[in-house]
Amino acid sequence: MPKKEKGKLRIIALGGLNEIGKNLTVLEYADDIIIVDCGLGFPDEDMPGIDIVIPDFTYLEENCDKIRGMVLTHGHEDHIGAIPYFLRAMNVPIYGTNLTLGIIKNKLAEHVLPFEPQLNCVKAGQTVRLGSFAVEFIHTNHSIADACCLAITTPLGVIVHTGDFKLDVTPIDGDMMNITRLGEIGRKGVLLLMCESTNAERAGFTPSERKVGKSLEYIFTSNKDKRIVIATFSSNVHRVQQIINVSAAHGRKVAITGRSMLNIVGAAVELGYMNVPEGVLVDINEIRRYKPEELTLVTTGSQGEPMSALYRMAFGDHSQVTLGRNDLVVLSSSAIPGNEKLVGRIINELSKNGVSVLHDAVVEVHVSGHACQEELKLMQALTRPKYFMPIHGEYRHLAANRELALDMGVEDGNIFISDIGKVLEIDSKGARFSGTVPAGKILVDGYGVGDVGNIVLRDRRHLAQDGIIIVVAAIDADEGLLVSGPDIVSRGFVYVRESEELMDEVRNIAAIAINRCIDAGDVVDRMHLKNSVKDDLSRFLYSKTKRKPMVLPVIVDV
Amino acid sequence: MPKKEKGKLRIIALGGLNEIGKNLTVLEYADDIIIVDCGLGFPDEDMPGIDIVIPDFTYLEENCDKIRGMVLTHGHEDHIGAIPYFLRAMNVPIYGTNLTLGIIKNKLAEHVLPFEPQLNCVKAGQTVRLGSFAVEFIHTNHSIADACCLAITTPLGVIVHTGDFKLDVTPIDGDMMNITRLGEIGRKGVLLLMCESTNAERAGFTPSERKVGKSLEYIFTSNKDKRIVIATFSSNVHRVQQIINVSAAHGRKVAITGRSMLNIVGAAVELGYMNVPEGVLVDINEIRRYKPEELTLVTTGSQGEPMSALYRMAFGDHSQVTLGRNDLVVLSSSAIPGNEKLVGRIINELSKNGVSVLHDAVVEVHVSGHACQEELKLMQALTRPKYFMPIHGEYRHLAANRELALDMGVEDGNIFISDIGKVLEIDSKGARFSGTVPAGKILVDGYGVGDVGNIVLRDRRHLAQDGIIIVVAAIDADEGLLVSGPDIVSRGFVYVRESEELMDEVRNIAAIAINRCIDAGDVVDRMHLKNSVKDDLSRFLYSKTKRKPMVLPVIVDV
Repeated sequence: MPKKEKGKLRIIALGGLNEIGKNLTVLEYADDIIIVDCGLGFPDEDMPGIDIVIPDFTYLEENCDKIRGMVLTHGHEDHIGAIPYFLRAMNVPIYGTNLTLGIIKNKLAEHVLPFEPQLNCVKAGQTVRLGSFAVEFIHTNHSIADACCLAITTPLGVIVHTGDFKLDVTPIDGDMMNITRLGEIGRKGVLLLMCESTNAERAGFTPSERKVGKSLEYIFTSNKDKRIVIATFSSNVHRVQQIINVSAAHGRKVAITGRSMLNIVGAAVELGYMNVPEGVLVDINEIRRYKPEELTLVTTGSQGEPMSALYRMAFGDHSQVTLGRNDLVVLSSSAIPGNEKLVGRIINELSKNGVSVLHDAVVEVHVSGHACQEELKLMQALTRPKYFMPIHGEYRHLAANRELALDMGVEDGNIFISDIGKVLEIDSKGARFSGTVPAGKILVDGYGVGDVGNIVLRDRRHLAQDGIIIVVAAIDADEGLLVSGPDIVSRGFVYVRESEELMDEVRNIAAIAINRCIDAGDVVDRMHLKNSVKDDLSRFLYSKTKRKPMVLPVIVDV
Repeated sequence: MPKKEKGKLRIIALGGLNEIGKNLTVLEYADDIIIVDCGLGFPDEDMPGIDIVIPDFTYLEENCDKIRGMVLTHGHEDHIGAIPYFLRAMNVPIYGTNLTLGIIKNKLAEHVLPFEPQLNCVKAGQTVRLGSFAVEFIHTNHSIADACCLAITTPLGVIVHTGDFKLDVTPIDGDMMNITRLGEIGRKGVLLLMCESTNAERAGFTPSERKVGKSLEYIFTSNKDKRIVIATFSSNVHRVQQIINVSAAHGRKVAITGRSMLNIVGAAVELGYMNVPEGVLVDINEIRRYKPEELTLVTTGSQGEPMSALYRMAFGDHSQVTLGRNDLVVLSSSAIPGNEKLVGRIINELSKNGVSVLHDAVVEVHVSGHACQEELKLMQALTRPKYFMPIHGEYRHLAANRELALDMGVEDGNIFISDIGKVLEIDSKGARFSGTVPAGKILVDGYGVGDVGNIVLRDRRHLAQDGIIIVVAAIDADEGLLVSGPDIVSRGFVYVRESEELMDEVRNIAAIAINRCIDAGDVVDRMHLKNSVKDDLSRFLYSKTKRKPMVLPVIVDV
């Protein structure tokens, strides 16, 4: 244990608290900063048009010279997906395991960066020194291979950051989470545990990944006459390994489709994370050479994503695969909240085409990658932390994780449910919240990063609800005359061809409002003129249709 | 059994197949039509701004003189919600049980109708004669009181239409579904079974409503120091009854909040469907007189609906109720697919305010109102139909119900998965699909019924994705001159103040396109001019931003 230090340790999450995704934690001591993970989030339904959400990097940009490095727990998008955007502004050494870095290299190939990124490969068991910090990578189980917890030695004590984890006693790669090492660290004393909260509301233990293998074995045995199509998360290397294993055992060839599946499986095979028997993998373009019952297809699209390979297969738009009565589709996944309807749409379409469908509500073809309550309590029991900060989750999850910590004996006053941007300060006297730093959601829409904010989103939502009515009039201000118009153009409001009468009324009301302003000599005050048109029309339209389209007067000076 | 008839029986669903909600079935024989249910549906996420969806009544309007009556299975929105719209055009006698009609009367009070509706009260066990049809109402269990199956005698045989049902051996009102009567009818021979499919993918039996009562008893016993707030579906009269019972047993007063909860509980008490001990109900305005631990609040909002009473409580916007550490909120419901995020938002907000929250993932505070597989098979076993048509569900549910029927011995060729508008024709020779009638989704947006269609929706979705750019230019066509503009106005595209350079480029490109047309003498062809501007700008904007805003050129003639 380090001796008592006078310095202050600051722990700041820039993402991952009170939200799902965009996990990023900043640890700061004196002039040193390290970053744990740099993930993206997905847009809520009230963010139309947004592609992804990334953390606000302002605080890091302002303290760029202090950053000693970024350490990564694993290769999921919500932990690494914002790295290409981070690297646009800051060239920081990045440390992660082999597969994690392999996935990042794939991603970075699609981005133009001002410099060569510094990617440093670390093996579980190794320790990286970064300024005042020493970061030990500890092997853990998760729904992606090569995931790690971190034990971060600071001048004030050890911080354990769990990343995402579960305890799998029978993992596919034979390598159980290193709870022995966590116990050793716990025995020496842990200052702060930062523990993920995804499944903190769920009782019991998360089943082993191997359980899915048993279900697959049963499915393959009872569907010997069918082609089997399995959709799963591309990053679940162990799941794909099990699919390959059971296919090989049943004498089937495996073909892979979907861009991200090809990418990640490619990286995993190349880096030695998957073990594919000779001759089992075949190109998707060559599947016509085999009978349906000799084939397994592994595909993306388990979340019902439009344009994914499975979606295209379901809707008859996949160039190599047409599905029908001889096919069984297995959704080896569970719908992420918000995706239920998309997944349902695919199941319906497949059923209509006579395809048999199996999903996790019917047979256990998916297990979670996150620790349930008993595993979270085990983490507490192993690490016995002085302070506890639940991370990775909405408030409900953080609060549930807090309850577990209380049950395990952490003192109430030593548990900190934080928020993004909120600073937890620890020194030799204790721990407390102390101020905030800039934090938030930066929206990425196409090439634009941060150019869509609340005003633009509010307009998009307004336009989506009731459409827009544009009033165009040409005015000769010198003469005080309405020279042309008003013309009415609408989009997304009503089907105009069947609402001519209404549109005529709209034109009349706009004309009256404009002429009233002209007569009153108010025409020079364009704001007043526009507001008059807007108010009169909005009132009329609401009384007539109970709708509130956006009304946009455009006045042309001639 | 009626003797063999030469006529044809036609069975047409105008809603409820390949969709959730808007249940409406048409039965037709010779010059007689009867309608079973007339429900509404809720909009999908790809229908922004739409309030509700109702069936297309075209076929019924065209055959209005044949309609002998409408019979209702129960009072849920998806079975009666479109009645006010139906009644605008057609005055048809309506038959339903007491509570069902009570709920309809509440609804109709908000609509102006051209005539007094003909509402006829029927008790389970009674039979109504409607032209060639005789409709027997048979008591069933469901998540609303006074629900019925229908046994419809036609000249060709008996049709059993299940409505929505479950078998509850220990129902709250003591009145089990009348499976004896169904068995008697089955023994005499059933021509066609139309059976609901909601839970056809779920194994086993749906638990009894009484199970919720046991959970409530446990919750009340272990939370004696807290005010208990329970959110549930307002129409679940038996659920509310159980809440009142357990509250009374624990010496608590019950206050009700939320408009639909007040409406339906009012109707249920008035009509004798609820039994409230003297002095237990108190007005929500009087709750300050009681200590928190002496109170139960029953509220709407179990689906997380914004503006519902629970939502307002959670976000500190309810005039009588502020929630905090002394409150326990019970969500006695399950999230309808698509509402998970809304419900999650309420749970998070409540947790943040220190409120304890219980929901169906943690304790069994909700049971379904729909039959699971074993009950669906029981329905087959009792009725032993010749023909089978699964109803009420997406394709996946209909297909799962079909599998159950096959298991129970219905012949493959005698099972008909239909679609809305598709006509199933039965005569003495057999059954077959035979043509279609108009059917679809009529969208209700504010006062507008059917004035929003695919084009308007497509525009709304487009506007929501990337916003709109309006290009306004005044042109003197005689002189062939650009007199004013082009001016650029955008909404929902980028934050303009931070994108001035981009907007300047947009203006330039628009000006170049317009002047090119003027120079080429193409200005008279307005369509060509507009398309030039649109194409040039769209191409530029996509290359620059990877977005596709709607580009709308407006040319003013002066």
